[in-house]
Parts: sequence; C-alpha cells; structure tokens
Amino acid sequence: MLITRQSDPDNLEAPFGPLTERRSPPGGHYVRSHFPVPALDADFTLRVTGEVERPLTLGLAEVQALGAETRTVTMECAGNGRVYLSPKVSGVQWALGAVGTADWTGVPLRAVLELAGVRLGALEVVLTGADRGVMTEPVRSPGEAPYARSLPLDKALGDVLLAYAMNGRPLTPAHGAPLRAVVPGWYGMAAVKWLTGLHVTSTPYQGYFQTVDYARWETRADLPPERVPLSAMQVKSQIAHPAPHAQVPAGQPCEITGAAWTGEGTVTQVDVSTDGGQSWQAAAFLDPAEPGVWRRWTLSWTPRQPGPVTLLSRATDSAGHTQPAAHDPRNGTYVVHHVLPVPVHVQEGAS
Amino acid sequence: MLITRQSDPDNLEAPFGPLTERRSPPGGHYVRSHFPVPALDADFTLRVTGEVERPLTLGLAEVQALGAETRTVTMECAGNGRVYLSPKVSGVQWALGAVGTADWTGVPLRAVLELAGVRLGALEVVLTGADRGVMTEPVRSPGEAPYARSLPLDKALGDVLLAYAMNGRPLTPAHGAPLRAVVPGWYGMAAVKWLTGLHVTSTPYQGYFQTVDYARWETRADLPPERVPLSAMQVKSQIAHPAPHAQVPAGQPCEITGAAWTGEGTVTQVDVSTDGGQSWQAAAFLDPAEPGVWRRWTLSWTPRQPGPVTLLSRATDSAGHTQPAAHDPRNGTYVVHHVLPVPVHVQEGAS
Repeated sequence: MLITRQSDPDNLEAPFGPLTERRSPPGGHYVRSHFPVPALDADFTLRVTGEVERPLTLGLAEVQALGAETRTVTMECAGNGRVYLSPKVSGVQWALGAVGTADWTGVPLRAVLELAGVRLGALEVVLTGADRGVMTEPVRSPGEAPYARSLPLDKALGDVLLAYAMNGRPLTPAHGAPLRAVVPGWYGMAAVKWLTGLHVTSTPYQGYFQTVDYARWETRADLPPERVPLSAMQVKSQIAHPAPHAQVPAGQPCEITGAAWTGEGTVTQVDVSTDGGQSWQAAAFLDPAEPGVWRRWTLSWTPRQPGPVTLLSRATDSAGHTQPAAHDPRNGTYVVHHVLPVPVHVQEGAS
Repeated sequence: MLITRQSDPDNLEAPFGPLTERRSPPGGHYVRSHFPVPALDADFTLRVTGEVERPLTLGLAEVQALGAETRTVTMECAGNGRVYLSPKVSGVQWALGAVGTADWTGVPLRAVLELAGVRLGALEVVLTGADRGVMTEPVRSPGEAPYARSLPLDKALGDVLLAYAMNGRPLTPAHGAPLRAVVPGWYGMAAVKWLTGLHVTSTPYQGYFQTVDYARWETRADLPPERVPLSAMQVKSQIAHPAPHAQVPAGQPCEITGAAWTGEGTVTQVDVSTDGGQSWQAAAFLDPAEPGVWRRWTLSWTPRQPGPVTLLSRATDSAGHTQPAAHDPRNGTYVVHHVLPVPVHVQEGAS
C-alpha cells in the first residue's frame, strides 16, 4: 500500500488517490521518520519544563485525563513533491504522496500548558521527541541529538493536539506512539512524534531542524537573506486522477480529480488546464471548505485528439494566494507548491 | 610571503613566525575572502538604516571626518588550525597562519551609530559587505547574496572600528578597501570587509554566515543543541619556533617561541611541554598583557637525547580559561584552539 522512499529509517509515501473518501484509507497515510522508531515502554512520561509556574512530569493516563478532542487534519511533508525539482536535489525523493488526511484524537496542547502555568514573557514551546541520532548531513551535529521543533506560543495555545489516536485507533509506533503533536495547517515537520518533552522558552529556539534543516530564506528590510523556520503550508493542489503517464481514451468523458489544501484559511478555487496552461476551467468541489483539511475537486473532460496532453491544476485560497508557476528558490528543497504538470497520453477511442 | 590555501577567491595564510616584531610583517597578514574582491570606485557610500532616528548615506570622507583611532588588534580566522582536525573536514585547510596582528586606523563604529541615533529597542547592528556570491555549500542560498554579520549593540558601541588604514597605510583591496570593520577580540568573520551597509535591528539577524556557517552548537536548559553565532576568540597559543618537523641539534639551547591570545581579557600564563605533555614549564612573556593583542612568549630548552620529540604549548587567560586537550565537536570545523602537537626531531649535536 505504501511506497518505500527510504528504509532505515522508514520513509513511506502513499499512492496519491483514488480519493474515494476524504480521509486517507487505513494504512494509507505517509510516514516520515528522521531516526529509527524509539523504544518507549510503560515508563513513558511527558516532561513540561522551562518558563512555567509548575514543571510537570505526566504519565500517558494523566495526559489523557486532560480532555479529548478529535480533529480532521491534512498533513503534508514539507518535502512533498521534491522529486519534481530540477536540477535534482538531495533529500528523500517524495513525489505526490507525502500528504494525507486523518482524524486525530488527543489532548489540546493548551490544556497541558494551562496546567503547567505559562509564565509572562514566554515566546515559544519546544517539542522534543524520543527519536534521536546524528545529523550527518552538513551542518553535522556534535553527537546524537533528538528531533525537536518549536511553536510560537499563540499557535501552541491554539489548535495543536497531543494525539494518542489516529482514525479512532491507538497510534502505531510509525506514527509516533504513544503521543505525538498534530499541528493543523503546518507542514508535517512540526508534528513531532514520540513526544516526551515540552519546554517553554522566552527566546527563539535555534535547533538543527529549524535553522539548518526545515528552514527557508526570507528577506526583511535592506538585509541579506535570513533563515526562517518553515511553518504554515502554502496553497497547493494535486491531480490524483488520471495518474501521471496514464493512457486516456479519446472521445470519452474522463473525470479529472484531485485535492487542494492550504495552511491558513481555506481553498476557495481550483482551476484545471487540459492544454498545458493555455486555458483554464474551474473545477467543482466535492468537500466543503474547512480550515486545515483538503478539499477534493473534480472536472469532467472529454479529450478529442489522440496524442500527449499536459494536465495542470492551480488552487487559490481565502487569503487570495494562488499556486505559483515555478518553484521559489528561497524555499530550497522544501515547499514545492508550484503548479506541477501531469503528462497523460490520449489514445484513439474505442469505437 | 603568503601561502595560497585557496585561489579564486584568494585565501592566503601567513607563515607563523618568526615573530621578531609583535606586529605581523608588512604583507604578512592572512587574507580571508568568501567572494571575489568587489569593484568599489569613487561612488563608495556607507548606508546606515533600520532602527535609527536618521538614516544616513555617507561618503568615505564623511566617515573619516567622524574621528580617527588606531588600535593594535590580533585577528584570527575562526577556521585557523582546521588542517589539524581528524578526521579531515571540509573548508579552507588553514594551518597555523590564519592569525595576525596589525595596527588598524579608523572611525569608531560608535561615532557613526551616534550620528544616526540608535532607537530604543535596538538589539544588533548588521554589517554588510559589497562582496557577494552564491553559497554553493549546503545549505545553498537562493541566488547571490552579500557577506554579512551582526554584532550585539553593546559590542557595536564598544571598541569596534571602521578601518580605512592598516599599519599606517591605506587598506589594500584584499583587506577590504576602502572600509572594513575591525572587531577586537572576535574571530575574523566579524571583521566585514568592503563595508557598505550598517542596519540596526530589533530582533536577531539570522543570515547564512551566522546560522549555517560561522556558528557553533550550544545547549541551554533541557533543550537539544542550538545554533549560536561564533563571536569572541577562545584562549589559544601557538609555537612559532621551532617549526613543525624541524631538526633540532641535541646539547644546544633552543628557544621555543610563540604567541598566545584570547578574546576577552588577557593571556596570563603559557606553559610549554617538551615531552608530549608529561611535564610543563612556564614560558616568559616578551610582551605586556593588552586586551585584543597576542603576547609573544619564549622558553629556553636544551634537548639531550636524539630522537623524535613532541612540543606543546598551553595558554591560560585572565578569566581562568585554559586551552583544552582536544577539539570540542560542538565547534564543528571552527574554534580549533586545543593544544596542538608540534613534532620535531632532535639530532646528534655538532661536537
């Protein structure tokens, strides 16, 4: 069901489609791992430290006792689509399937922070996983370090969940059991798995996974570019059907279907081109507009002439952002959200 | 006179020694370049922007009219000694000579900032050079960007010079003409050459040369390691004579000489070992203790037995810091200030 993009540790991509349900099918959600799955036994605890009134050490049952919410969330790996970059770049060569939608059940991060009592002047919450290893890519880390990412305090006090269940079942080890973060609207790197630490800071956290890795270049004022951690997903659509390089019969209706998502707000429009971008038609949505969840869309197309055709889809969100035509080099090997061509071949129709 | 460690752009090391004068000999100061020497003609201006009351555009004569100070400064490239790291690392393979001492004449940075009027809440001053290019090492930059580094406001208002002369002569293009920063006590990466921009910020600057490059790993509280910009030099000594792999006659006095420096405070002691670290003797200083300037030192040694000998020197500064025995991996390929062995061979003495 899943496509191995890297083993040891597992990095598994889902086939993008058929999107018969809004949620990814069971076992059909992508898996992104930086290090091997850590061994977390019955001794699991979540430590809450830093700028808090009451540092805490909570067992899983104590966390779960703080309340439960379920959210449907579309999560996309920040490197999804990297295989489409040219020239080729390093990193896991994700195609279209490092994105998925699931129901996550957990405790609002806000509830844990309120129990600990966040101090005045707090700025960020650093989420640390139990997974650890040596960063061997430049810049090399000094020995083993755990995976960790920070969230601004307002996001942490917002819609973030500490999830212990996925689609109504306990988390699997590959998805971060027993506890992981789920950060609606943000790229997946924020959804720290095997979560064991929350540390509240009064200055920005400058760890590996938000300076060297999972960061982009941004320019302010008259200054040379600066490294800024990746955060919210950018507006994006993908074509699920027909699949790239599919054969499509001429003279017969073909449903072009896909999904579109964005980080903040909702997707308001998807346009589709069946002539490589010369003309565009509005697709119809199959799902309502919900923040943090993709909307499936469809457009009926009857190809006339045999030959090669390039399909394109282009989404616009409620903030008025539209997918760009080309990759922004400031994003490096991440945030691949430009319009991607899907080549298909129209064949002589059956008569 | 200088040793080419890289050409295009020029990266030139000085022979370390003979230290007959406290200052490096004419033409004998190392050159570190990130990009080719930029063309700066009569149109040169220094722009002062950001969190200031009065943004300024100053010509060279206007800068020079703000006053002149001359400081003797020992400047060391943060990568000096990298060739001694094992296993071998990437980067310019500096040995002992990416360090030098010169008299720098210029305008206190403080005078320029006072003219512009730094606003309340200012935190850093970003110094930008006219030299620019593409960072091709990971993490790759999005197109060309200039060399830039920031200084905390208190350092910027302290002893930093905007220098236009070196050892009483106008700066050469290789040393940053017409204007460069000189940051006493800090590694050379802070001494931005071909300086054309000062931008005052109220939040930390996160540019390439202080996050990806010229940064180290530091750990605070319970957090995983963070990237912190390199700043002050660490206490260090080097042996200038005898040179590595020299032949030394037995039974005759040999002056072991060298220099020692530190970033903050002064060097208070240098110990020398002629038996690979089993025993140590205090060296005598040839220079007084002056902040920001190295002290030359000497110890007379009469080797007795022919054979290989490992010489070592170890400095201690006024803050009580002593050179460590081994490289700290948190420093990556920088801040190579551990005790370095100098192998020499004692020969049968002439009789």
